[in-house]
Amino acid sequence: MSDKKEEILILNKTFYDALGANDIELMESVWVTDHRAKCIHPGWPLLIGWDPIKKSWENIFVAGGISGVSISDVHVEVTDEVCWVTCIEHVSHVINDKIAVNLIQATNVFEDTGNDTWSIVLHHASSIPITRGYANKETLQ
Amino acid sequence: MSDKKEEILILNKTFYDALGANDIELMESVWVTDHRAKCIHPGWPLLIGWDPIKKSWENIFVAGGISGVSISDVHVEVTDEVCWVTCIEHVSHVINDKIAVNLIQATNVFEDTGNDTWSIVLHHASSIPITRGYANKETLQ
Repeated sequence: MSDKKEEILILNKTFYDALGANDIELMESVWVTDHRAKCIHPGWPLLIGWDPIKKSWENIFVAGGISGVSISDVHVEVTDEVCWVTCIEHVSHVINDKIAVNLIQATNVFEDTGNDTWSIVLHHASSIPITRGYANKETLQ
Repeated sequence: MSDKKEEILILNKTFYDALGANDIELMESVWVTDHRAKCIHPGWPLLIGWDPIKKSWENIFVAGGISGVSISDVHVEVTDEVCWVTCIEHVSHVINDKIAVNLIQATNVFEDTGNDTWSIVLHHASSIPITRGYANKETLQ
């Protein structure tokens, strides 16, 4: 695997570490923190700029929060200045003492923001409304 | 507006012209038609490669089809090799002789596939489940 792919996958993992830990500072560390930042939460229209995006994450973290995140089906594409990752998020919430796991399809776009520093410029996430029974074809055979 | 921005916006419009006209050939003309193509329809997991993506569009077009599409809230970002557009799709379907309009938030990523030819490499679309009452803040004032 190329160094750049590895670097982007580490950054992508940091994003999910921040999400799983409800850690707004760690979340901020992986984003471009100006007007170029764009974020689409499941079912939401686009948020533009780091300030409203940061507030949205803070609200998500406060509102019960997320008890854990893992990812699967990770694909990464790299070019000189822009890379993008698609993955399925397995997001756990505790509801009435039970754990609910939601599957979310995500696209994360990363841009080289100078000095070989990569940052998220776009996060697009959409629910996959089949939280039971979704599996790779191979798994079902 | 830069030439490149204009070119990408024209290509983006062609994508929606194809969608509104249920025109698979026009649709194919704007995509990268190999394994790099990625597509996420609303509520779907990722499709990889042009063949399954083409089939999915054909199925969408056959299954009653789409009677019209317009877009709003269009934003475009350009770099040398990769550009991305976000927009809200207003997709019309005829159901029981009535027209239903669904709002869908989309991200379209375009890559320079050589000789300054740009193609869609990723389409990610997710429903905004507020088909009535969604408007820009300014419109409501």
